[in-house]
Parts: sequence; C-alpha cells; structure tokens
Amino acid sequence: MEEYTVYLFYDIENDGIRNKIAETCKDYGLERIQFSGFSGILAKNKREELFLKLSSLISNKAGKLLMLPVCERDIKAKKEIIQERASDSAQG
Amino acid sequence: MEEYTVYLFYDIENDGIRNKIAETCKDYGLERIQFSGFSGILAKNKREELFLKLSSLISNKAGKLLMLPVCERDIKAKKEIIQERASDSAQG
Repeated sequence: MEEYTVYLFYDIENDGIRNKIAETCKDYGLERIQFSGFSGILAKNKREELFLKLSSLISNKAGKLLMLPVCERDIKAKKEIIQERASDSAQG
Repeated sequence: MEEYTVYLFYDIENDGIRNKIAETCKDYGLERIQFSGFSGILAKNKREELFLKLSSLISNKAGKLLMLPVCERDIKAKKEIIQERASDSAQG
C-alpha cells in the first residue's frame, strides 16, 4: 500500500468537535503543524478511513476541512516559516 | 512560465499582521478557503515574490506559515468538507 504525505487543515467553530478532530488526527500518527493543521504519512486506506471518521465527527455542523495528499516533488517545493513566540526580554 | 495551484495556511497571533497577510494573498488573486487559508493558481515567480512579501510582513514576529504548491494529480485526490453555518431554525 502506497504511503503518501497528507496535510489536513480545518475551520471548526465548535470547541468539542475541533478538539476531537485534533485527537483523531493524533490517533492516526499525524503531527500538529499549526493550531488547526496536521500533517504526516498515511497509506491511502488509512487516509480514507480518517476522512470518514472526521466527516462523522463534523456531521451536519458548520465547518470546513481540507485533506490534501501531497507528492514528494511538491513537498520539496514547499516554503515554510516557523517562528515560536519570542520572549519579551529577547525583543529588548 | 508554468502555473501551479498553491495552498497557503498560517497561524499568526498579531491581528494586524494576520490581516495584512490575508490582504496580500487577495492581491495575488488567491481565494480565501478557510479563516487562515488561501488557495489559487500562481506562476512560480509570483509564488516566490508572494512568499518574500509574507516573510517580510511576519519579519521576526511569532508565527507559522506554510506555502504548498500542489500538482493536478494531488488536487484530484483532495477531500473536502465545506458546510456553512446552519440557521438555528433550520436545525429545528
């Protein structure tokens, strides 16, 4: 089964559902990369299983979710900024 | 110049910077797909120009930003949930 990098981003208003989505992503071994964004490596069947679980969590509630499989070539072309919160003292 | 779909997601605490990032994405013709997520078609030079502008907006402030070019094959495999807020009356 081919494994593939997957990115997952969501906008979910309901705190309970949003937290369950994050927990479910972690259960599938995905890593949190933003507040409402995860990524990791998943086989296609696991990816589809995860999407079904997340759909069922959101059910008919308002929300958006994007699951995006991304090939190695595109991963190499990604650009990223990751800056943790600076302490006030460090900013002088 | 090859054009390519690009996805852009960010976590930025500072409201002013976050708003400027959204405005800059719109200036480049990207469409808002989530609260802090845009996508659209950009040639490589425009994509790099946009990334430089966004980097300069964030400067040394805390924040995360991911710019992800995604090929047509992967776009076809994306899965998405888009549910607008339901009115209370509609939920019975």
